Amino acid sequence: MRALSEGRGAVAMSDVKVGIIMGSQSDWPTMKEAADILDELGIAYEARIVSAHRTPDRLWDYGKTAVSRGLQVIIAGAGGAAHLPGMMASKTRVPVIGVPVQTRALSGVDSLYSIVQMPKGFPVATMAIGSAGGANAGLMAAGILSLQDAALADRLDAWREALSASIPEEPQG
Amino acid sequence: MRALSEGRGAVAMSDVKVGIIMGSQSDWPTMKEAADILDELGIAYEARIVSAHRTPDRLWDYGKTAVSRGLQVIIAGAGGAAHLPGMMASKTRVPVIGVPVQTRALSGVDSLYSIVQMPKGFPVATMAIGSAGGANAGLMAAGILSLQDAALADRLDAWREALSASIPEEPQG
Amino acid sequence: MRALSEGRGAVAMSDVKVGIIMGSQSDWPTMKEAADILDELGIAYEARIVSAHRTPDRLWDYGKTAVSRGLQVIIAGAGGAAHLPGMMASKTRVPVIGVPVQTRALSGVDSLYSIVQMPKGFPVATMAIGSAGGANAGLMAAGILSLQDAALADRLDAWREALSASIPEEPQG
Amino acid sequence: MRALSEGRGAVAMSDVKVGIIMGSQSDWPTMKEAADILDELGIAYEARIVSAHRTPDRLWDYGKTAVSRGLQVIIAGAGGAAHLPGMMASKTRVPVIGVPVQTRALSGVDSLYSIVQMPKGFPVATMAIGSAGGANAGLMAAGILSLQDAALADRLDAWREALSASIPEEPQG
Amino acid sequence: MRALSEGRGAVAMSDVKVGIIMGSQSDWPTMKEAADILDELGIAYEARIVSAHRTPDRLWDYGKTAVSRGLQVIIAGAGGAAHLPGMMASKTRVPVIGVPVQTRALSGVDSLYSIVQMPKGFPVATMAIGSAGGANAGLMAAGILSLQDAALADRLDAWREALSASIPEEPQG
Amino acid sequence: MRALSEGRGAVAMSDVKVGIIMGSQSDWPTMKEAADILDELGIAYEARIVSAHRTPDRLWDYGKTAVSRGLQVIIAGAGGAAHLPGMMASKTRVPVIGVPVQTRALSGVDSLYSIVQMPKGFPVATMAIGSAGGANAGLMAAGILSLQDAALADRLDAWREALSASIPEEPQG
Amino acid sequence: MRALSEGRGAVAMSDVKVGIIMGSQSDWPTMKEAADILDELGIAYEARIVSAHRTPDRLWDYGKTAVSRGLQVIIAGAGGAAHLPGMMASKTRVPVIGVPVQTRALSGVDSLYSIVQMPKGFPVATMAIGSAGGANAGLMAAGILSLQDAALADRLDAWREALSASIPEEPQG
Amino acid sequence: MRALSEGRGAVAMSDVKVGIIMGSQSDWPTMKEAADILDELGIAYEARIVSAHRTPDRLWDYGKTAVSRGLQVIIAGAGGAAHLPGMMASKTRVPVIGVPVQTRALSGVDSLYSIVQMPKGFPVATMAIGSAGGANAGLMAAGILSLQDAALADRLDAWREALSASIPEEPQG
Repeated sequence: MRALSEGRGAVAMSDVKVGIIMGSQSDWPTMKEAADILDELGIAYEARIVSAHRTPDRLWDYGKTAVSRGLQVIIAGAGGAAHLPGMMASKTRVPVIGVPVQTRALSGVDSLYSIVQMPKGFPVATMAIGSAGGANAGLMAAGILSLQDAALADRLDAWREALSASIPEEPQG
Repeated sequence: MRALSEGRGAVAMSDVKVGIIMGSQSDWPTMKEAADILDELGIAYEARIVSAHRTPDRLWDYGKTAVSRGLQVIIAGAGGAAHLPGMMASKTRVPVIGVPVQTRALSGVDSLYSIVQMPKGFPVATMAIGSAGGANAGLMAAGILSLQDAALADRLDAWREALSASIPEEPQG
Repeated sequence: MRALSEGRGAVAMSDVKVGIIMGSQSDWPTMKEAADILDELGIAYEARIVSAHRTPDRLWDYGKTAVSRGLQVIIAGAGGAAHLPGMMASKTRVPVIGVPVQTRALSGVDSLYSIVQMPKGFPVATMAIGSAGGANAGLMAAGILSLQDAALADRLDAWREALSASIPEEPQG
Repeated sequence: MRALSEGRGAVAMSDVKVGIIMGSQSDWPTMKEAADILDELGIAYEARIVSAHRTPDRLWDYGKTAVSRGLQVIIAGAGGAAHLPGMMASKTRVPVIGVPVQTRALSGVDSLYSIVQMPKGFPVATMAIGSAGGANAGLMAAGILSLQDAALADRLDAWREALSASIPEEPQG
Repeated sequence: MRALSEGRGAVAMSDVKVGIIMGSQSDWPTMKEAADILDELGIAYEARIVSAHRTPDRLWDYGKTAVSRGLQVIIAGAGGAAHLPGMMASKTRVPVIGVPVQTRALSGVDSLYSIVQMPKGFPVATMAIGSAGGANAGLMAAGILSLQDAALADRLDAWREALSASIPEEPQG
Repeated sequence: MRALSEGRGAVAMSDVKVGIIMGSQSDWPTMKEAADILDELGIAYEARIVSAHRTPDRLWDYGKTAVSRGLQVIIAGAGGAAHLPGMMASKTRVPVIGVPVQTRALSGVDSLYSIVQMPKGFPVATMAIGSAGGANAGLMAAGILSLQDAALADRLDAWREALSASIPEEPQG
Repeated sequence: MRALSEGRGAVAMSDVKVGIIMGSQSDWPTMKEAADILDELGIAYEARIVSAHRTPDRLWDYGKTAVSRGLQVIIAGAGGAAHLPGMMASKTRVPVIGVPVQTRALSGVDSLYSIVQMPKGFPVATMAIGSAGGANAGLMAAGILSLQDAALADRLDAWREALSASIPEEPQG
Repeated sequence: MRALSEGRGAVAMSDVKVGIIMGSQSDWPTMKEAADILDELGIAYEARIVSAHRTPDRLWDYGKTAVSRGLQVIIAGAGGAAHLPGMMASKTRVPVIGVPVQTRALSGVDSLYSIVQMPKGFPVATMAIGSAGGANAGLMAAGILSLQDAALADRLDAWREALSASIPEEPQG
């Protein structure tokens, strides 16, 4: 449930639990994987472009108001010198999940190192490079929110069981 | 507060919120960084050796009982072909934080790739290689638990502020 | 000779010597290279999807019954955080051959490190990344089985001689 | 000439041309190489600890006042997920020179990728990993300042000539 | 404003501030990104092919006359064993900005290491691999020239502000 | 049980099941790990220095007589451009287990790639880099030999169980 | 001038100075670059497929007769676990030039490490990965042969001068 | 036989066949390995420090006079952004052998890529990283010179045979 005027549903702002932020429009295909998971599990979220370098003040404001706005998890995706997740982790105690976006020259190893190698004090919960990482960010957010929401925990269990049940016994072809 | 007979304090088992698990005794210096953070923040935890390969049934049992035992976060550290965090994530919906332990030949790049590159369905919140990653795993656990515990959130905020305040203006020497 | 209902032949289950397992359907093009070699050499096998993360109990059962079912070799392929081969090696003393499947972002280096860097106690006989590794897994299985089967040893020798004989003296074009 | 109370000289604040900033005290041995070059060439500088993650507001203020304070070049060193140089480049048009500090697990490849792989819009003039990079940051600053300062240009030429002249014809030993 | 007979404008040679040099015609798509930025910001430049290996004497002459010709910045792009930027830095004190061109086998990691890992004495201000690096080389040149040109500084500020203003609040699609 | 005059026991040549070969004396500390495992499990072996480059004819002879001498498994360790395991695999159908020895500059990544990336036709069962790989080569040999030797299979099971039983519940210190 | 029945010219066997060998037909596009250079410079050569693993005896024979057949240089190309150049260097003192062929998963880094990291005693003159390396192998052979052939030295000088002369002053487009 | 006043022997300049050049005194331990081999084989050489960046004119002169001075082979060692071998190859048709010196942060991978990835036209015969590469550079030079010197060819054959003969049958310890 995306809390946006043009979004797929109408959710009161106060219900938004997860903020999905990304460095640029080009990161959206990766981050939409997270949004799709949240949609499947009925978790309200917002999606925003917050560029660490191009809109640093937006990053600042987003980080400073995250707690007061009631955000429970922030999912941040970026590529290359991917500073968004780490800088957001510096600005708020709300858990930050980082998604390394695949890049052209270095295949996302640059994104991964820039996100995961945070110094003591400011963890970023780093996911796999690319679309699997995007989807898993949504699932990690769901796991965290499930700690306070038994109904969501049940939906997450069901999602996991359905995934397991979907695996055939033998390969085809 | 380590929930162990020989531990540094006495905590009722029902209070244990975080499980710190690791593949072998040699991972403890890295994982003790997490334990120290949890101690500083007053979060009850247990520390266990659970080897994915040498004690797979222990891993199975730990994963299957994690929800019923009331664990809120599992911190799992391992090195080399580091399968513990990912296999634990497969066995429970409790959020798993992974710590890549530094290795001799490949410096922990093997650990990092084995932990972070999880397929869609089973996220592991991966931290930095080595001791910074260990400490940050404790802080990430604290951030997650703070969502339900305002007093802990205050302690975490204070910890972060103290860290920031400890930075001198100018380098010495 | 694939011991499957839809398989290319009909082989009594008791004849199955090799188990080919893989994490997902998408690994089949790589693992089919192993199956093709086994077919060429007249070795009965079964092919199964056994996901370490999505079907961990299937992995457990497969490993625990491998000896009693008479499996002589297990060929396990997986990509990314490729835990299947190593976890299978933890569950059975039947020799496990690992095939690192090529991946999108990291080209299979993640698969390779996750499979080959096993700790002392649980070896995985790791092959090359991708389709050459798949085929070689079949040949390694044949080499192991040849130790007890002189006729197979002759067929393997012939296969190797035919390969050598197929190399022209000079490049064309 | 370090513009600090405890510094090696006394320079009016208005004379400070170069700001050397670093993420932590542990970066100083690398960054002191830059300071030493600036001392040798008679360029006034200040040295500050500005941690992107631990003191983000200090980073913000430093960046926002860089032009008005008359800084001509900023030399920023950091290790691991090294966000300081890039974030500073986002906050000011003053040229930023980045120094990747060598790290324990990844030898500074993480620092290098985090600093050099900046997106279009915010260049960081990246130097070599470690102490050579620190010294060269000082020399690059000198080269930039020489464009407006003929006397400095002469000193820089002399420094370069002396370096060349110091190379013996034959190896010793 | 490209100072070439066939160029996009007519600029007196004495006005040329930036030399864009590259190892071969195949580097031009990357380096044209720099030229485009200089055009946007109204900075006169020339573009030349100067191959370190194929035309070493051209490199020598270019370097030796850079100061006397009034060049303020040299942008040098090259791929593979990318020796052009570093050799140019050896021949002149004019600041050299290096652009690692992406390569086929090693994706530009070879170019990056050959350019950035310069020994003490001869810095090259290294940019990101590929087209982002090309554009950023133009912006870094603009930042350096802005130190002496208030009007250019204003144009650069405006360019940066326009970039920031172009970022939408939310991802599309 | 090492089948050597100076060895730790006296074993008739016809009993030797495993050949441990290595490129040079400096590989012995790594390969001795394999020998120690074979000793523990009561498997007769010989240890030989067979350098692919320095003694190619020794390699040829060893490979050509491996079957007739009754060798069941060959364990081959080498470092750098590690050609020994692959060349041995080319000369005999006896299963070859490869151990990448850690190297000074490239930490054994060169050894690993040279051993594991074999073309279709000639598999090498590659182990982890360094001493863990050495020990695991011995265990893999034991697993292969167990297929024909129920008593050895029991000893291997017991070895594995003892390893598992040796893991304490909690970390010490 | 290729000394082959189907070749582009007719050269007496005694004139063949350079042997171009490769592991498989698929290496020919890379190695043909060497042949083309030798053709351009009028150097007689032969091209052969000599697979280290599939035709080891052919390798042996080629190496053992290289001196007596009058070969002056051997150019050997291979990919993956590229053992051909190093094994040839072990069998003959005729200088061996190695060409790492680009590979699918590891882009030729595996080929490069397998070829270049030779132990003391058996050098392989390693060229760049892929087609540039192929062409340069031809030029390196020409450089070596020029030491004894003044006419060839002149042709090589002319080739180099023509290459330099072909570089335009400015990029096009 | 080092053709230096302080050298180990007295050789007329006209006898010098091999030039050993290196970027700095710190490269000498690596390059001395080449010198020792040349001494063992009775090949006259000179050893010079020729820094591509610090003494580019020395490089120019060395390259331009190499043919007229009668040099037959140039061995060039350098570390980091190792431009010396490639630039020398650009200046002379005398065969250039490159030795990548091991470096602190990147272990010589930077040196290797900077030396081996030469563009078409200017080959550098690249050796292994570090001391093995140094020694092999001497042996490669000997192999090249042996083409014109039957006595040297005999000494080289003897050297190789002695190396092979020095390998014991079994490991010690």
